[in-house]
Amino acid sequence: MIELEISVAPMHRLCKNAGADRVSEEATKELAKVLETIGIKIAKEALDYAVHAGRKTIKAEDIEIATRKVMEK
Amino acid sequence: MIELEISVAPMHRLCKNAGADRVSEEATKELAKVLETIGIKIAKEALDYAVHAGRKTIKAEDIEIATRKVMEK
Repeated sequence: MIELEISVAPMHRLCKNAGADRVSEEATKELAKVLETIGIKIAKEALDYAVHAGRKTIKAEDIEIATRKVMEK
Repeated sequence: MIELEISVAPMHRLCKNAGADRVSEEATKELAKVLETIGIKIAKEALDYAVHAGRKTIKAEDIEIATRKVMEK
């Protein structure tokens, strides 16, 4: 299995915070996988914006605009 | 500041994996915030599907269908 950057413990807490009584282990893994995929998409878009602005550093404003772009697709 | 479940260290690694040389601290916090918001949305939708199926446990299949719904909006 591919190693994920996002760990499963916070995914379990997110589901509990959302009101769930119980969460299967597979569900926490799936949520980690999904958020990691979305996160990488956003980071790649953010990097494009940073480079376009002549920077080598991703800034918060790059993440903001990249998020809007990824979520509107 | 609101305490997030998702920590910033994996967000930094996600950005590095996406090809970034450098990532500002504010950018990693913004990415954590964004993914946490999306994660909670997905978890809430997943809980609705679980309850609708007569379960108290969120399963991987609930996360899958909830993700499609949240990302298509």
